[in-house]
Amino acid sequence: MPTNTQNLLDHRPTDKVSPANFRIVETPVPAPGPGQVLVRHTFLSLDPYMRGRLSDAKNYAKPQEIGAVMGGGTVGVVEASMNPRFKAGDSVVGMGGWQHYSVSDGGGLRVVDAKTIPIQAYLGPVGMPGVTAWYGLNKIIAPEPNETVLVSAATGAVGSVVGQLAKLAGARAVGIAGRPEKCACAVRELGYDACVDHKSLRFPEDLKDALSNGVDGLFENVGGEPFRQALKRLNDFSRIAVCGVIASYEGEPTAVPDLRLFIVRRIKMEGFLQGDHTDLWPKAIGELVGLVAAKKLTWRETIRDGLENAPQALIDLLHGQNFGKMLVRVD
Amino acid sequence: MPTNTQNLLDHRPTDKVSPANFRIVETPVPAPGPGQVLVRHTFLSLDPYMRGRLSDAKNYAKPQEIGAVMGGGTVGVVEASMNPRFKAGDSVVGMGGWQHYSVSDGGGLRVVDAKTIPIQAYLGPVGMPGVTAWYGLNKIIAPEPNETVLVSAATGAVGSVVGQLAKLAGARAVGIAGRPEKCACAVRELGYDACVDHKSLRFPEDLKDALSNGVDGLFENVGGEPFRQALKRLNDFSRIAVCGVIASYEGEPTAVPDLRLFIVRRIKMEGFLQGDHTDLWPKAIGELVGLVAAKKLTWRETIRDGLENAPQALIDLLHGQNFGKMLVRVD
Repeated sequence: MPTNTQNLLDHRPTDKVSPANFRIVETPVPAPGPGQVLVRHTFLSLDPYMRGRLSDAKNYAKPQEIGAVMGGGTVGVVEASMNPRFKAGDSVVGMGGWQHYSVSDGGGLRVVDAKTIPIQAYLGPVGMPGVTAWYGLNKIIAPEPNETVLVSAATGAVGSVVGQLAKLAGARAVGIAGRPEKCACAVRELGYDACVDHKSLRFPEDLKDALSNGVDGLFENVGGEPFRQALKRLNDFSRIAVCGVIASYEGEPTAVPDLRLFIVRRIKMEGFLQGDHTDLWPKAIGELVGLVAAKKLTWRETIRDGLENAPQALIDLLHGQNFGKMLVRVD
Repeated sequence: MPTNTQNLLDHRPTDKVSPANFRIVETPVPAPGPGQVLVRHTFLSLDPYMRGRLSDAKNYAKPQEIGAVMGGGTVGVVEASMNPRFKAGDSVVGMGGWQHYSVSDGGGLRVVDAKTIPIQAYLGPVGMPGVTAWYGLNKIIAPEPNETVLVSAATGAVGSVVGQLAKLAGARAVGIAGRPEKCACAVRELGYDACVDHKSLRFPEDLKDALSNGVDGLFENVGGEPFRQALKRLNDFSRIAVCGVIASYEGEPTAVPDLRLFIVRRIKMEGFLQGDHTDLWPKAIGELVGLVAAKKLTWRETIRDGLENAPQALIDLLHGQNFGKMLVRVD
């Protein structure tokens, strides 16, 4: 009889996350009851928001329960169903968590087409990160043709979509990324007009050089020094979509040093969560699926093997060791 | 022959403004040429933006020219006109500057009704400060009934209008002001539901007590500690209209300490200048004039006498020594 490998949160990190915060257990694979569906996962999504859930501080997402299976987005295949909306063999995306199998009543579970699009893309460009990019770019930045959009974590799951959508909107797209090879990929594969390495000693000068027309829209995923330098390049009437501050999740808070800049430059800054805008998901996902199918939207992935490596994969994600969407293959 | 007393900027302040930065001169009253109009000023407006113009640092307004008459809003009476749009005796509002008389081609000069509304109100609630309040409240905060709007410098030229417009929109209005008598006036005369003295040692606790439902809209005029405390009270989906940071004009910059708050609370913050929205002036002024005429909008004034006292009046304004709109009577 197959067992269900599960990765639980054992205790909360007091400082930085460590693999020791998690614990693997083996349990019997559950059988679906009436109305339920059993899913075998193939990929687990790792996302920056998970760091917030490991803490019990005030956050937009509820803290992860201790001793419970760590939550997370998953794709997989329906193994058995007693729910008329699903049948065995369906490819599905949901919030199955850090485990091989999950049973649910089908709430939050969605059947997807995994023939024309690789299934794990539903955790990336045609999933939550894609909708996040779509919302922040279209609803907050709303770039005009020839405006400049600056994207931090430019090759990440969200940033890579932002850059490509900005180009499709006729804007100039400039990225910030953390290694020369990421910057090269941003320009060659993702279509950025330029990309600047924030780990270079020349970062402030390089950023200035890449932004001769300034910045009209800043899609902020990182915070920290890249954000502080980006603020200096903002144009009048620029918009900042605050999506994440990953540099601060295990580091110093990111401050806006001088509020007066917001008046002098008439800047609009807005923090957002895709989860507040579920009404727009069908439209956003529809557009993103269309772009992927038409090969107008591409992405990078970093795939780690095995649930037991999920904690280290999360840690690596938090420190920029991924290259594109961070996934764990769990089958 | 009458002379024109003028107050010039003599040299820029290196630290805080001092009366020594200005210089009085007497010149002949100019005669209007063809197309020109001569105005005798009755009141000069003092406004926080003037501090920025004394510096040559990057700002939204051009630096004040050294050796030239200090710029500023004025109301007055047309003495002589060779411009068909104006006739002697007209009450007018314009940017006549720190002097008794000004000659212009009529650009930026507007005839106003000074019979039903005191003429100096065109420098306050039915002038630039009023439009500033109207824009930030209606176009950025856009309060829903029963939401809470928090206003710093609550009895100032801008803040006093914000609070009353918020109440008229059905919102709860809470003020922050710098003295107990200002707070008392805010509640008794301006209709605020509560007002908290930021100079009190109990300010953080008092603010929390006054904001049991949190803050949905923050109209920020001050910055500094009042702003930092206000940030802690913001609700999800709250809006911040950044109008001014007067505490920082001669002090430390005001920082937003943690960008993450903007995501956790999904906050929108926007800096603005009324001057970018001249298309909305007629609508805004029309509404404000209607409210003043209907006695639904009131205000406080601090009037100083004599152009020679304008520098000290500006200094006092920057340090909150005014109570309501700061004016200099110049006739």
